[in-house]
Amino acid sequence: MTPDAAQLAEKLRALLGEGRVLTAAEDVAVYAYDGTPVLRQNPACVVFPTTTEEVAACVRAAGRGRTPIVTRGSGTGLSGGSVPVEGCLVVCLARMDRVLEVDPRNLTIAVEAGVVTATVEETAARHGLFYPPDPGSRRISTIGGNVAENSGGLRGLKYGVTRDYVMGLEAVLASGEVVWLGNKCVKDVAGYNLRDLFIGSEGTLGIVTRVLLKLLPLPAARQTMLASFTSIEAAGETVSDIIAAKIIPCTLEFLDQQTLRCVEAFAQVGLPTEAAAILIMETDGHPQVVAEESAAMAKIAAARGAIEVRTATDAADAERLLTARRSAFSALARVRPTTILEDVTVPRSELAGMVSFIAATAAKHRLAIGTFGHMGDGNLHPTFLADERDHDEMHRVELALGEIVDRTLAVGGTITGEHGVGLAKKPYLRQQLGDSSYQLLRLVKRALDPEGLLNPGKIFDE
Amino acid sequence: MTPDAAQLAEKLRALLGEGRVLTAAEDVAVYAYDGTPVLRQNPACVVFPTTTEEVAACVRAAGRGRTPIVTRGSGTGLSGGSVPVEGCLVVCLARMDRVLEVDPRNLTIAVEAGVVTATVEETAARHGLFYPPDPGSRRISTIGGNVAENSGGLRGLKYGVTRDYVMGLEAVLASGEVVWLGNKCVKDVAGYNLRDLFIGSEGTLGIVTRVLLKLLPLPAARQTMLASFTSIEAAGETVSDIIAAKIIPCTLEFLDQQTLRCVEAFAQVGLPTEAAAILIMETDGHPQVVAEESAAMAKIAAARGAIEVRTATDAADAERLLTARRSAFSALARVRPTTILEDVTVPRSELAGMVSFIAATAAKHRLAIGTFGHMGDGNLHPTFLADERDHDEMHRVELALGEIVDRTLAVGGTITGEHGVGLAKKPYLRQQLGDSSYQLLRLVKRALDPEGLLNPGKIFDE
Repeated sequence: MTPDAAQLAEKLRALLGEGRVLTAAEDVAVYAYDGTPVLRQNPACVVFPTTTEEVAACVRAAGRGRTPIVTRGSGTGLSGGSVPVEGCLVVCLARMDRVLEVDPRNLTIAVEAGVVTATVEETAARHGLFYPPDPGSRRISTIGGNVAENSGGLRGLKYGVTRDYVMGLEAVLASGEVVWLGNKCVKDVAGYNLRDLFIGSEGTLGIVTRVLLKLLPLPAARQTMLASFTSIEAAGETVSDIIAAKIIPCTLEFLDQQTLRCVEAFAQVGLPTEAAAILIMETDGHPQVVAEESAAMAKIAAARGAIEVRTATDAADAERLLTARRSAFSALARVRPTTILEDVTVPRSELAGMVSFIAATAAKHRLAIGTFGHMGDGNLHPTFLADERDHDEMHRVELALGEIVDRTLAVGGTITGEHGVGLAKKPYLRQQLGDSSYQLLRLVKRALDPEGLLNPGKIFDE
Repeated sequence: MTPDAAQLAEKLRALLGEGRVLTAAEDVAVYAYDGTPVLRQNPACVVFPTTTEEVAACVRAAGRGRTPIVTRGSGTGLSGGSVPVEGCLVVCLARMDRVLEVDPRNLTIAVEAGVVTATVEETAARHGLFYPPDPGSRRISTIGGNVAENSGGLRGLKYGVTRDYVMGLEAVLASGEVVWLGNKCVKDVAGYNLRDLFIGSEGTLGIVTRVLLKLLPLPAARQTMLASFTSIEAAGETVSDIIAAKIIPCTLEFLDQQTLRCVEAFAQVGLPTEAAAILIMETDGHPQVVAEESAAMAKIAAARGAIEVRTATDAADAERLLTARRSAFSALARVRPTTILEDVTVPRSELAGMVSFIAATAAKHRLAIGTFGHMGDGNLHPTFLADERDHDEMHRVELALGEIVDRTLAVGGTITGEHGVGLAKKPYLRQQLGDSSYQLLRLVKRALDPEGLLNPGKIFDE
């Protein structure tokens, strides 16, 4: 630890008390990584503020010595967005975990950044209300992290992503000032929309400390189905046909054979492991609409040659299917030492071609890739099963990744649909955005964080 | 005309040809104002580019002499956002009016900025698709203006506002560079969300030249109703009860007696002019849902003492009701020489109190105020009927406006729900945002337009 870092830690202990400041190597090592493979870096210090004022005080203290700050919640990120930088202060918001208000008259909930996503959903449900965004990590991820990454989930097709539910947020700026952006009004055009600029800014523009979220009425009914196919193409065409029939179900999730076999071995929910691909389909809303839409989707799947369309027998059975899907990443991660999860997203019309391209790329480079994802959103998670100690294999992973990115961008797609740029996707961002747009990001960053103290080196190099 | 302006006009004529550059006082006078009362300023020059490259060339030419640029479409704005500043170049995008692409597979439409809003809706409808945002001026407003102001409309309650449908946009920056922000992917978290920063930035950060919009399937059914009440409070409570019953209809429009009498005199659609207030309610979607929701809304209105709940007999009848509502501003504008239309918005729970407060304020200051608006959104348009030549009356209008703004902000509302800040709301913006947030806007403006050339003096003073 440098003398500067020791001095900062001293100040922080005076601010927060002994127990909420970690500096010992064995303590801070726990905060050296997030959910992204390979990336690790010990911070100099980790603090656990419990109020916005404490966060602001930590930022000011760090700023005086120009110590970089990396914010984190549960560290479930998949792009290295909360991996520390050398010598940094990690501000962990996990203890800012209070639900502040549920307002059924305005259909809103206000929470601190450290509240777990599933807690938001469950709290809303107790009032007959619905918080739709449901990232795979929702039982452990924090809402602050969801806002920082603009997380998606399984219901994106019908309900959108985290951004669509953030009505307001409180943020601590690089200067230590605190701002509130947004309010309970469902329409507001007073000044630039800085709220949406902060959403998805991955901790590089400010530290989000509180969030005001929009809620919906809970859907009256829900139907979950599983369709299995003898080819990936048939699954893809089923998705296209459903959209073309002007049905917007809440969930259209895809798992290829590699993935579904791993999931079945892991979760044992009776998935058809002989199928080349499965779709998990869910529709919700008015009972009559749910009945008609699920019948129509089953018919479309059958017309595309589905081996079987199974309807969940009850809510518990539906939850088993969705939980199995949510465990895809964990299940794949058990197969080989290093799991590299991609997040490419393409316009829906390009989906079938993209799935085939990924399979061909895996074969070409002799790699194991399990692909799953939010097919209705065009959002795929090709997952490389590799071993970081095998340099030749890792080299082939890199080549394959580059080819998948090139193809994604050639068809108008994006390098990341819901995981963020962080460190993992940084090498590809300029290629996607082009020089003028890329330069605009840097202008905005410099305007809001002129000294580059907040999560430096993430998204782009300053 | 100054020598500098004459020189710029010469350059612009060389770029665009004689016929697309206006400088004569009688020609540019037509572009001296928008839909906002009182505000007028002749520009030095008006140009009509037809391509993005021409817009960029105009911006570069103006930039060399530091000539300020004000962008406009049809000039229907209600906050003075496109009123020229002295000596400026007006870039009128009305001739960039091509529909570029309808993509039914990805549910998108791409258009140039000068396309009229109703054309977007009608083009989508010919493909069985739906563009929901419907500002009152939709038959003449341009989509570029809608994006610049983040326009709302009558369907905001269920379908949101313009922002919710913009997937991508092309903008010319102050430097003359052209950027594309966004794409056809329904999920994209690659880099800061600058698209949403440009939406609603009122021409101060860049000139939006093309827009990629999201479409929805056309709702299968629709039901429109008119409920009349003996008190404003009963109408407000009906709205609250509908939301509390977890019904989100597409439209819940309110007209007070002053407004509905003016509208009836203007449009003659048989509105109940003896009522203290009316609600126009519309639900759309699956036929079964529409039937149940409209029955439930009629029951709620009756329980709140509605004099009558009338159901539109057919689509033409429904359209008459909605058109009558859309004519509210024009109808009120016929009564007195000066019509000052406000746009305050409050959390839904504060709506009833706000409506009463506006009525009390009108009485206190001996003013005629007609109030109508998007009650389901908490978005009210108290409209002052006055005469700008009567200085005493205008002073009372100013006092009343100040009190309405104070009250709005005290209950967590916003000074503008859908019309923008422009010049008209500029005096109140800092009060709403607070110093830190207000300062952030200026930082962003300076980063993107360091010389302050784009629509200077709008939203805030630099």
